[in-house]
Amino acid sequence: MILQTTLAKIDANRQRYVEELLGFLKIPSVSTYTHHASDVRRAAEWVGNHLQRIGFETRIYRTERHPVVFAQHCNAPGAPTLLVYGHYDVQPPEPLDEWLTPPFSPSIRDGYVYARGATDDKGQFFTYVKAVEAVLAVAGNLPVNVKFLVEGEEEIGSPSLGRFMREHSHELKADVITISDFSQFSRGVPAITYGLRGLSYFQLDLQGPRFDLHSGSFGGLIHNPVQVLADILARLKSADGKVAIPGFYDDVLDLEEWERKEMDSLHLDESALKEYLGVEALTGEKGYTPMERKTARPTLDVNGIWGGFSGEGAKTIIPSKAGAKVSMRLVPDQDPAVINARFEEFVRALTPPGVKIDITELNAAGPLLVTRDNRAVQAAARAIDIGFGKPPVFIREGGSIPIVNLMKEVLTTRNILMLGWGSPDDGAHSPNERFHLDDFHRGIRSAAALLFEIAESRSTRPE
Amino acid sequence: MILQTTLAKIDANRQRYVEELLGFLKIPSVSTYTHHASDVRRAAEWVGNHLQRIGFETRIYRTERHPVVFAQHCNAPGAPTLLVYGHYDVQPPEPLDEWLTPPFSPSIRDGYVYARGATDDKGQFFTYVKAVEAVLAVAGNLPVNVKFLVEGEEEIGSPSLGRFMREHSHELKADVITISDFSQFSRGVPAITYGLRGLSYFQLDLQGPRFDLHSGSFGGLIHNPVQVLADILARLKSADGKVAIPGFYDDVLDLEEWERKEMDSLHLDESALKEYLGVEALTGEKGYTPMERKTARPTLDVNGIWGGFSGEGAKTIIPSKAGAKVSMRLVPDQDPAVINARFEEFVRALTPPGVKIDITELNAAGPLLVTRDNRAVQAAARAIDIGFGKPPVFIREGGSIPIVNLMKEVLTTRNILMLGWGSPDDGAHSPNERFHLDDFHRGIRSAAALLFEIAESRSTRPE
Repeated sequence: MILQTTLAKIDANRQRYVEELLGFLKIPSVSTYTHHASDVRRAAEWVGNHLQRIGFETRIYRTERHPVVFAQHCNAPGAPTLLVYGHYDVQPPEPLDEWLTPPFSPSIRDGYVYARGATDDKGQFFTYVKAVEAVLAVAGNLPVNVKFLVEGEEEIGSPSLGRFMREHSHELKADVITISDFSQFSRGVPAITYGLRGLSYFQLDLQGPRFDLHSGSFGGLIHNPVQVLADILARLKSADGKVAIPGFYDDVLDLEEWERKEMDSLHLDESALKEYLGVEALTGEKGYTPMERKTARPTLDVNGIWGGFSGEGAKTIIPSKAGAKVSMRLVPDQDPAVINARFEEFVRALTPPGVKIDITELNAAGPLLVTRDNRAVQAAARAIDIGFGKPPVFIREGGSIPIVNLMKEVLTTRNILMLGWGSPDDGAHSPNERFHLDDFHRGIRSAAALLFEIAESRSTRPE
Repeated sequence: MILQTTLAKIDANRQRYVEELLGFLKIPSVSTYTHHASDVRRAAEWVGNHLQRIGFETRIYRTERHPVVFAQHCNAPGAPTLLVYGHYDVQPPEPLDEWLTPPFSPSIRDGYVYARGATDDKGQFFTYVKAVEAVLAVAGNLPVNVKFLVEGEEEIGSPSLGRFMREHSHELKADVITISDFSQFSRGVPAITYGLRGLSYFQLDLQGPRFDLHSGSFGGLIHNPVQVLADILARLKSADGKVAIPGFYDDVLDLEEWERKEMDSLHLDESALKEYLGVEALTGEKGYTPMERKTARPTLDVNGIWGGFSGEGAKTIIPSKAGAKVSMRLVPDQDPAVINARFEEFVRALTPPGVKIDITELNAAGPLLVTRDNRAVQAAARAIDIGFGKPPVFIREGGSIPIVNLMKEVLTTRNILMLGWGSPDDGAHSPNERFHLDDFHRGIRSAAALLFEIAESRSTRPE
C-alpha cells in the first residue's frame, strides 16, 4: 500500500530527479587528479547536504585524501538495517576529444544522459537517495534502518576505506549491504550479481647483463632477459588454454549442472562479441563456454611487457632488463595467498642462472560467491521485479571488486547485494559514458521496493 | 730499404702525428645530429685538405646528407691498387656526464688519447694518411696505387654509400680493399679479422582486440597478444640453445678442426667476462665454446619488446597490441633471403586466429668469410708483424658490417682486409672512448709496411 503510493510519487517526480542528477554530474570529482581535489570535496558536500536535507543524520569524515560521507536514518527499532555503499568520485574523462559533448556538461540524447559518472557511480548510487526521499515523503519514516557509506576514492582503489571501516565498524553495522556499483546483464535484462572473481597481480623484473650489450659481440654467450621472460610467460599457460602452474586448479569449485544451464540460457552473442572486439576468433580454456570462462573459471593474463629497444628501426642490442605485469583471475575456493606462493615458486624454478628475477606482489583479492537462497538476495529479486517489471537473472562477474571483500570481512555479514541499474555498454571508464533515464527511474523504483522487501523478510537480520 | 727509412721517419715524426690527430678529434662530427651538419662538413674538408696537401688528387662529393671524401695517388703503373676505407664521422658523445674530460677536447692520460672518435674511426683511419705521407716524403712515390674512400655517414648506417659506390665504381676500382674499422683481438694481440656474421632483423607487430580490454570482463575469452608474442618467442629457441626455426642450420658451414683449435688457443677468459657482464653464468648453444658461439655460430636474440601497461602499480588490462624486435646473426653459408623466408613462415604458423601479425624486415646482411690463404691477407699479416713486432692472430667477428658486403658486391673483389689497431676495450660508442698512442704509432708503421708488402705480392692483382 505505502509502496504503491511511493512508486506513484517516484513516477510523478521523475523529471525533478533527473534535473538533480544533472547538477550532481556537473561536479568534476575526478579523484585521481590533485588539481580536482576541491571538486571532489564539493561533490562530497553535495551528497552530504542532500542527505541531510531529506532527513538523514549526516557526517563528512576526512581521510588522508578524499572525504567519506556517512549518513543514517535509524528510526525503525527492531527492523533490519540496510547499508548502502556508493561512490561520488569519477574516472578521469580523457581522451577528451572522443566525447561528443563535454564530460561535465551532462547532455540528454535518445533517452540517455551522457556525462562522466552518469552510470559509474553517481547515477546508480543517487537512485537510493531519491528512493529514501520518496518513502519518507509518503510515510514519514522508513520501513528499515538505512545507512549510507559514500566514498570519494573508489576510482583510485579505495586506499582509505579499509582503515575507515575498521575504525567505524560499529557505526557501519548493518544486516544487509547493498553495493550500487554493478549493472544489468544487458539493457532490459536486470540482474543480481552473486559471484566475483578474485585477483592476484604480480610484477616481474628480470636483470641479465649489467648493461645493454652489442648483440653481434655477445649474441650466443648469455641469457637474454627478454627471451627468458618470454619462456617463462609461455610456460604459464598450456596449449589447451589452462594455467600451467602446478596445483592452480586444486581448489577450484566445479560448476554445478544447474549453474551451467542457467549460464547457457543467458545467451552470450559470440559473433556480436567478435565484431565488437575486432577479432576473428575467441579462445580460452577447452571444455567451457565463453560465459563460463569469463566469469566462473580462473584465468591468467599478461597485462604489460617491456624490455630493450622499442624505437624506430633496428638497434642490435641484447637488453639488460625486461619486465612484465602478470595477473590471475581467481574463482571460489582459490585462495590468493596459496596461488601467489605457487606462482612465485613456479616462476623462480623457470628462471635460469645468469638472470636475476624480482617478483613483486601488487594486488591480491579473494573470489566471492554469495549464497543465492539467502533471504536478502530473494528480497532484492522481488524488488527488481517491481522496479523493472521483470525478475532479475543471476550472474557472476569476471572482475574483482576488492571493496566487496572488505565489506564482508570488516562488517562480518554474508548479506551482500551486488546490484546495478545501468548496462555493460554504458561506457563506464570510457568516453561518452551514459546512463539511460528509464534505467535511472527503474532503479529508484527498485531501491524503494528493496526497503519494503527487506523489511518484510525480517528474518534476514538474525541469519 | 725504403721501408726501413720510412719506418725511421715515422718514428721521428711520432709527436707531430699525435698533434695532428688531436686537431682532427676536436671537430665534433656527429653525423646523426642535424645541428652538427656544419661540423661534419668541416671534418670532411679537414680530411680532404690533408690528403691534398700530401699530394693526393682529392675530391669531396656531396650526397643526400654528408659528403664523401675521395682521394687518389695512382702513379705506380702496373702495380696493384689499394683502396683504403675509413669514416670521419663519430657517434654521439652522450651521456656527457660520464666523460672524465670533454669528448671533443682530446686529453692524453697514461699513454691514451681520450676523445670521441679516437679509435672509431678517426685515429685508426688517420694512420693510413700518415703512412702514405711518410712513404711519399722518403721515396717521392708510392709502391702501389692508393685510393681513399672516407665517408661521413658510417655511424648512421651509411645510407648514401651504396649509391655513391655504384655511381663511382670505376673510380673506386681496386685490387685490394682495406677497412680500418676493426681492432686487435686484445691490446698487444694484433689481429686480422677474416669472418663476419650476417644479420636478419625483424619487427613483429601483433594486434589482438581493437582496444585494451578489462581483464576481469574479458579474461578467458580471447587471445592476449602479449601472451601470443611470448609463445612465439619461446618457440624460436629450443632448450639446448639452438634456434628452432626449421631449416635454420641447413646451410651453416661446420667449423673445421684446425679452426676450433685456433679459436681455443685465443683464450677467452670466461670468469673475467662473467664479472664484466655481472652475470652468474654464460649460456648458449650446446657443444660449442663461447668463442665459437660468439663468432662462428648463428644465434637469435630479442632486441626489444613492448605491449600493454608498464607504469607503476597494477592496471588490469588485456593489451590490444604487442610488439618485438627480433634479430638473427648468420654465419657462412646462410643466406639472409632464405633465412628471412623461413623465419616469416615459422612465425606466421605460430600465430593463432584471433591475433593479426605484421612482420617487417628491417635489415639484412650476409655473413662473410675471407679466404685466409689469399695473398693480400698474407701481405697484411707480414705488415702487422713489422708494425707491431708480432704476427697477428686470425679472428672472426660476431657483428655484422654491411659496408663490407657492399664493398665485396660493388667492387667485385675478394681481397678485403679487415684490420684495426685499437682494442675491444677502447670504448667505441661509449663514454671515455680512447686509443693508445703506441697503437696509433704501430698502426702507422703497419699501414706503411702494407703498401710495400702488397707491392711485393703483385700476384694479388689478377687473382
